[in-house]
Amino acid sequence: MSEQRSREIRLASRPVGLPNASHFELATVPVRAPGDGEIVVRNEWMSVDPYMRGMMIDQKSYARPFQVGEVMDGRAVGRVVASRSPQFAEGDYVFHMHGWRDYAVAPAEGFEKVDPALAPVEAFLGALGAPGLTAYVGLMRIAELKDGDAVFVSAAAGAVGSVACQLAKARGCYVVGSAGSDDKCSWLLDEAGIDAALNYRTCGDLTEAVGHAFPKGIDVNFENVGGPHLVAALNHMNTFGRIALCGMIAQYNDVTPSPGPSNLSLAIMRSLKLQGFVVRNHLDLKPQFMAEAGALIKAGKLKRRETVEEGLENAPRAFLKLFSGENFGKMLVHIA
Amino acid sequence: MSEQRSREIRLASRPVGLPNASHFELATVPVRAPGDGEIVVRNEWMSVDPYMRGMMIDQKSYARPFQVGEVMDGRAVGRVVASRSPQFAEGDYVFHMHGWRDYAVAPAEGFEKVDPALAPVEAFLGALGAPGLTAYVGLMRIAELKDGDAVFVSAAAGAVGSVACQLAKARGCYVVGSAGSDDKCSWLLDEAGIDAALNYRTCGDLTEAVGHAFPKGIDVNFENVGGPHLVAALNHMNTFGRIALCGMIAQYNDVTPSPGPSNLSLAIMRSLKLQGFVVRNHLDLKPQFMAEAGALIKAGKLKRRETVEEGLENAPRAFLKLFSGENFGKMLVHIA
Repeated sequence: MSEQRSREIRLASRPVGLPNASHFELATVPVRAPGDGEIVVRNEWMSVDPYMRGMMIDQKSYARPFQVGEVMDGRAVGRVVASRSPQFAEGDYVFHMHGWRDYAVAPAEGFEKVDPALAPVEAFLGALGAPGLTAYVGLMRIAELKDGDAVFVSAAAGAVGSVACQLAKARGCYVVGSAGSDDKCSWLLDEAGIDAALNYRTCGDLTEAVGHAFPKGIDVNFENVGGPHLVAALNHMNTFGRIALCGMIAQYNDVTPSPGPSNLSLAIMRSLKLQGFVVRNHLDLKPQFMAEAGALIKAGKLKRRETVEEGLENAPRAFLKLFSGENFGKMLVHIA
Repeated sequence: MSEQRSREIRLASRPVGLPNASHFELATVPVRAPGDGEIVVRNEWMSVDPYMRGMMIDQKSYARPFQVGEVMDGRAVGRVVASRSPQFAEGDYVFHMHGWRDYAVAPAEGFEKVDPALAPVEAFLGALGAPGLTAYVGLMRIAELKDGDAVFVSAAAGAVGSVACQLAKARGCYVVGSAGSDDKCSWLLDEAGIDAALNYRTCGDLTEAVGHAFPKGIDVNFENVGGPHLVAALNHMNTFGRIALCGMIAQYNDVTPSPGPSNLSLAIMRSLKLQGFVVRNHLDLKPQFMAEAGALIKAGKLKRRETVEEGLENAPRAFLKLFSGENFGKMLVHIA
C-alpha cells in the first residue's frame, strides 16, 4: 500500500451562482497506512447530490460547509482492500461518506456493509440508498401518504423523484410527475408506470397543465424543484393536502433570492401542511424502507435509473449536470 | 313583533383591492315572526373578522362567498326576545352567525348559549370566542407548543395574537410579539406580560429586529400577517421549528399577488413545518380551550382587549379598520 497514490477532488473556491470547473481542483496524495481500527477502501462508485451545493458556501445549514482546500466528502461505495478492524474483511463492499477520492482510509465506524446479492452495489447510492430513503421518508412520514392519494412529484425522473413515483404507485396512488425532457416523460410512463407525465419545458403554463393532470386535485406534493412548480402545486392542492419539501433545486444557484410562492396564503384557506425535511433525521425508517424497496426491486416493481459519468476526474462535470437537468435518474460517477 | 323592523348590512359589490364604504349597503326589513322551532334574537354585539374579506370575492375557499345583495353573515351575540323552541327561553344570551343585523330570526340549531357570569357577553366574540380558540388551536395542535418554547407572534395585539401571547406565557414560553404602534407594544409588555414587543413600523429591518429579540432562535411562529413578517420569522427559526399559518392580513387586499417568502428553502435546511389551519376544523378542542381560558380569565391572567365601534351602521367602518391596523385587540360593533 505504501506506494499507492490516490486522486481526490477538493473545493478550490466558493461559487457565487452556478458553479463551474474552476471551483474544483484535482490533487494526488499518497494513501496512508491504516491505523488500528481503520480500513482502506478502493472506491468504485460515488454519488453527486444537490445538497452538496449548499455545502460549497459558508452558510448555517444542517451540514457543515466545506472549507476551501478540503476534499468534497460525499457518498460512495467501494471495496475493502485492507482492514485493521474486526468489523470488515478484505473484499467486503461498503457504503460510506468519503467519496470524491480513489481511496478512503478511515475508522471502521464510518462504513456500512452493503449486500451485492440484493442489487448491483451502485444501487446503494440510488434507489436503495439515501435518495430512495429520502423518497420514502418524504412520502410516508412527512406527507403522511395514504393509499389512493393523488400525488404530484416534481423532478420525477431524478434520483429521489423516480423512487417516490414508484413507491406511491405501489400503494395504489394516482401519480403525476414532471420532468424536463420527453425521454424522461416516456420512461416515467413506460417504466415507472405513473399515470401522467408533464414535460415542464414544453407544457406551457405549469399551473394549467397540472390542473389538467389533476381533475380531482392534489393530496400530496413531493417537491424537489420549488419556484413555479411549487406555485402550480399549491394552486391545485386539496384541503388538508400535504407538501413534502425535499428540494428547491430551481433556486440553489440563485445569486439574488427568487421570490417565494405568491399563493402561499392558499395554505391557510385549504389547511395545507408544508414540511421540510432532511433524510439524516429519519434514519429510524431505514429498516422498513429497505424491506419495502428491496421487495419491490426483486419483484421488478422498482426500476432503477442511473446516469453514469466515467472517471473520478469527471465528478465535477457530473455534479454540474444536476443543475442543468442533464441527469436522468441517479447521477453516479464510476471510479474504478 | 310584527311591526318591528331590523336594519341589516349587505354586500353591495365585490371589492378589488381595499374595500370601502361603497361595497356595503344598509337596508331595513321587517322582522318576520318566528316559525316553529325558531327564535328571535336582538343582537347586542357583533364581530368583524379578517376572514370575511375573502368571502367578499368569488373564490374557492373554506367558506362560501357572499353573493351581492346578501347580508354579511358574521358572528354575533344577542338576547333571545321570542322563542318557539324548547332549547331557549326569552332573556337567554346566545352566540350565533347571524350578525350584521339588528334582529336574527332562525332555527334554534344555529344558536349556542353563552354564560354572562363567566365574562361580559362580548368576550364570547373575542378572547373566549373564535379568536381565542383560534389562538389555542394554532399553538397547541398546529404548532405543537412545548413548555418553554421561544414563540414569535405577529399582529400580537390583535384579537387572535393577544390571546396567543398570553396562552404561551401561561405555559412558561419566551414570547415576543409584533404590533403596529407603541401603545400596542406597551400593552403587550405591561398587560399581556410578554417578554419583548416590536413596533414593526419603527423597528427598522424586521429580520434584524427579530434576530435581536431571539438570540436563541424561534421555535414557534404564530403567523397572522405574512409578507416581511414571515420572511423575518423564517430567517430565525430553529431546526424543527413550527409555523402556524393563521392569517396573512398583509396580503388580503392585494390586487396583484405579493411575492412569497424568498427564503422558504430554509424550511428544508432547518426541517421546518408550516401549516395553515381554519378554526372550524378543530372545534373538538373547544371544551379544553374553554376550561383553560376560562380559568385564566378568572385568575386575571388572560387580559381581554377590545376596540368598540358604536352602532350597526358603523360595522363597515369597523371592518375596514382591521386592514389599516386601527383595531387594538378584538374589533367589535356594539349594536344595542
